[in-house]
Amino acid sequence: MNQKQVSRRIACIGVGNLGRAWAAIFARAGHEVALYDSAAGAVTAALPAIESTLAAMAEADLVGDTKAVMARIRPCETLAEALVGVDYIQESVIEDVEVKRSVFRMLDDQAPPGAVIASSVSSIPPSEFMANLKGGDRCIVAHPVNPPHLIPVVEVMLGPATSEETYESCCALLSGVGQVPVRLNKEIFGYVLNRLQFALINEALHLVDGGYVSAKDVDKIVKYGLGRRWAFMGPFETNHLNASGGIEEYYSKFQGAIGGIMKELFLEPHSLSPELISRLAKEMEQTTPVADVPVRQEWRDRQLMALTGHFGDMRPTQE
Amino acid sequence: MNQKQVSRRIACIGVGNLGRAWAAIFARAGHEVALYDSAAGAVTAALPAIESTLAAMAEADLVGDTKAVMARIRPCETLAEALVGVDYIQESVIEDVEVKRSVFRMLDDQAPPGAVIASSVSSIPPSEFMANLKGGDRCIVAHPVNPPHLIPVVEVMLGPATSEETYESCCALLSGVGQVPVRLNKEIFGYVLNRLQFALINEALHLVDGGYVSAKDVDKIVKYGLGRRWAFMGPFETNHLNASGGIEEYYSKFQGAIGGIMKELFLEPHSLSPELISRLAKEMEQTTPVADVPVRQEWRDRQLMALTGHFGDMRPTQE
Repeated sequence: MNQKQVSRRIACIGVGNLGRAWAAIFARAGHEVALYDSAAGAVTAALPAIESTLAAMAEADLVGDTKAVMARIRPCETLAEALVGVDYIQESVIEDVEVKRSVFRMLDDQAPPGAVIASSVSSIPPSEFMANLKGGDRCIVAHPVNPPHLIPVVEVMLGPATSEETYESCCALLSGVGQVPVRLNKEIFGYVLNRLQFALINEALHLVDGGYVSAKDVDKIVKYGLGRRWAFMGPFETNHLNASGGIEEYYSKFQGAIGGIMKELFLEPHSLSPELISRLAKEMEQTTPVADVPVRQEWRDRQLMALTGHFGDMRPTQE
Repeated sequence: MNQKQVSRRIACIGVGNLGRAWAAIFARAGHEVALYDSAAGAVTAALPAIESTLAAMAEADLVGDTKAVMARIRPCETLAEALVGVDYIQESVIEDVEVKRSVFRMLDDQAPPGAVIASSVSSIPPSEFMANLKGGDRCIVAHPVNPPHLIPVVEVMLGPATSEETYESCCALLSGVGQVPVRLNKEIFGYVLNRLQFALINEALHLVDGGYVSAKDVDKIVKYGLGRRWAFMGPFETNHLNASGGIEEYYSKFQGAIGGIMKELFLEPHSLSPELISRLAKEMEQTTPVADVPVRQEWRDRQLMALTGHFGDMRPTQE
């Protein structure tokens, strides 16, 4: 362990897929993890599952000494035992608003002062179970993506009373263990990742249902098309690099086609107004000024070539 | 070149980004490519650009002898010269319906009998420029994704009179050169890839415009989240592997959240009716029966670990 870093005491509450993955993530990074689940026998059953996850990660060279990692995970029989001395709690119980409410009340009552309480909740807005808590300032959403130990992003959404200090502390911990925390500024139904996912899926269902394309071919179009770019750029950077004049030129040039699709699909289609395009362009400029687009396009192509090499495809059968 | 395969004579018409990439793709695979553009000097200027693309591909070990590949590309001064003896034409002129109409009429008039005429068109429906042609049966859309020599998928859409023979011949050629052709059964505005892309982008614009998340963080959420899965699975396979009971269990279990998002966004939200879910489940079962989901989940995790290794991320800073 890096001498400058500190081992922290973390409690993982709930040992389903997410809770087990969190335990592996935190313990791998050198933190002490207390593991608790209210279902009898669940924690004992979770240990070999975590061990087998770590063994697979070790094979892929993503973890070193799995025994040392497992030694940092301590199964607990009571919630009180799990919470002793912890400074961060990751809650991953079932997705039910009543359960979340009662678990958060318990955690807030029993956790040491100052400990951050983060929820893995994937769809219930934090205001529905973090409101009216004594320690609302230390409660926050840290929503991972399945499987969390292999997908970096974590949506961090502030609850009704979350303090900036809690936000900073949560993000620092997540970044330190190798995840990528992203801030959602305001509460929104479904959060961001799933809203984006199901915007695409809804249109995919429409196209499959209408007989335009098979579900299998939708998968191919994303896997061999959109996904290859989105694996290392986001959708906006993809558009920014799709014209030498950047996103502003791209959206202006293809306004007819893009706007046409949006108008056909959405209740609130975006007009791609000059104001919005210019705001986006300004944000994209912070990372890649238009003058640097050609150089960044070369970077994009090198990334795509590396992915082609990784997947071993795009080879002619007759060279 | 593999003895069993045949070198074909191909004409690439139009030498913008797409046309140049197509020339590199076909010539790399051993085909003879005639290159033509109606703009004076364009073809001559295109040759060094193609050579530099091939040089970058050679560095990434995606092409062998770039000189031999370039030797298969023949610049032509007239359309007639480019069309002599060809059996496949890839048209990549500008995205303008009048231009496409006139170019397709010329190509159909002048191309040898039996030669397939494919268009790189990205948004104009084929019925608007392939109708009323003598050889409508040999005309087809083969829409690539930018940059085509590094992104495999090609949307193949049948025009109003396209024959199955033309479809088969076009797909065989595209597969042979390392691309992944996907069939669109019926004409639809915007085609499939861009409809999926701008369904997601429209929601991304809504979230950025509403102050929920920054454009940069949308890119992070896709790049470190959705894109990591979609780079090797499609969206439906992703959902199919997100519950041990497959896509049917997943959609039923999360119907509230998914349906809620769709209802909020779309003019025609999909109801995720039991009929539609069951149809999807049946299609997914052809590739991965529910009984095999756990094994396929392990495959997914190995793919994700390999990608983590490829990108070199998800490392704790303090192990």
